[in-house]
Amino acid sequence: MTDFTMSATITAPYETTLARVRTLLADAGFGVLTEIDLQATLRAKLDLEIAPQVILGACRPQLAHRAIEVDPRVATMLPCNVVVASAGEDRTRVEVFDPAVMTSFSDADGLAEVAAEARERLCGMMRALTGDLEDRDATRA
Amino acid sequence: MTDFTMSATITAPYETTLARVRTLLADAGFGVLTEIDLQATLRAKLDLEIAPQVILGACRPQLAHRAIEVDPRVATMLPCNVVVASAGEDRTRVEVFDPAVMTSFSDADGLAEVAAEARERLCGMMRALTGDLEDRDATRA
Repeated sequence: MTDFTMSATITAPYETTLARVRTLLADAGFGVLTEIDLQATLRAKLDLEIAPQVILGACRPQLAHRAIEVDPRVATMLPCNVVVASAGEDRTRVEVFDPAVMTSFSDADGLAEVAAEARERLCGMMRALTGDLEDRDATRA
Repeated sequence: MTDFTMSATITAPYETTLARVRTLLADAGFGVLTEIDLQATLRAKLDLEIAPQVILGACRPQLAHRAIEVDPRVATMLPCNVVVASAGEDRTRVEVFDPAVMTSFSDADGLAEVAAEARERLCGMMRALTGDLEDRDATRA
C-alpha cells in the first residue's frame, strides 16, 4: 500500500530526540500548534500503559493558508502531525505525516506546490535530525 | 478523486453549531484533545483575515489505542479532525476527516474494524447535527 509517512528510528533517548525535533521544526519554519501526550492520555482515560509517545501538530501558517484557500477540506488534514515515540532504551522513532498524501485526495489548483514545499521542509528536518546524530541508526521510509 | 471528508453545510450560526458539535462529539464518545482557532492563528501569524473556523481534534481513546497497536504509523492521523467553519450569515460548514482514509494506506489486521467504528460514530454525530436542526439545509458528501 502507499506510504503515508516519513520515518526514522534514531539511536538517541526519547527526551533528547523530542527536544531536538522541536528545535528542528522551528528551524524548518513550523510552529507546534497542538501537542498530545498519548502515553498520558491513554493512562488517564483507559488505565493503559504504552511507551512514551507524543503527537506534535506542526503548522506553517503560510502553507496552511494557501492550502485551505484552494481546498477548504484540507483543513481536516491540518496541522501536519509529527509523532515522537520511544522505541526502547536509547532508541526513538520519529514519524511524520507525508503532506504529499493531500494530493492523493485533492487535485485543487496549487495544492501540489503547497504539499511539495511542506514535504521538502519536513524532509529537511528529518535529514537534520538523522544527520546531526553521530552515533545514528536511522532507517528512512 | 476519492472523498476524504464527510461534510454538511447547515443553516445555523457558527457559534451555535460549534457548541452543538462539541456536545454531539461527546455524545458520540469522542473527547476533544486539541483545538486550533484557525482564524485567530492566521490573524496573529500572518495578519490575514479568514472566516471564523476551528479545527477540533476528536479522539476516542479506545479506538486510538487499537489503531496504534496494529499500525503505529496511524498516530500521524490522530486525532480525527472536525472542522467547523462559518459559511456566511447563519450558515456553517462542518467537515470531518473520514477515518476510512486510514484503510487506503494501511491494511494492518483489525484497522478496518477500528476505522469503521470511528466512521459510524462520526456519521451518527453528523446525522444528529443535521437532523436536529428544523430549518436545515444540509448537503452530505
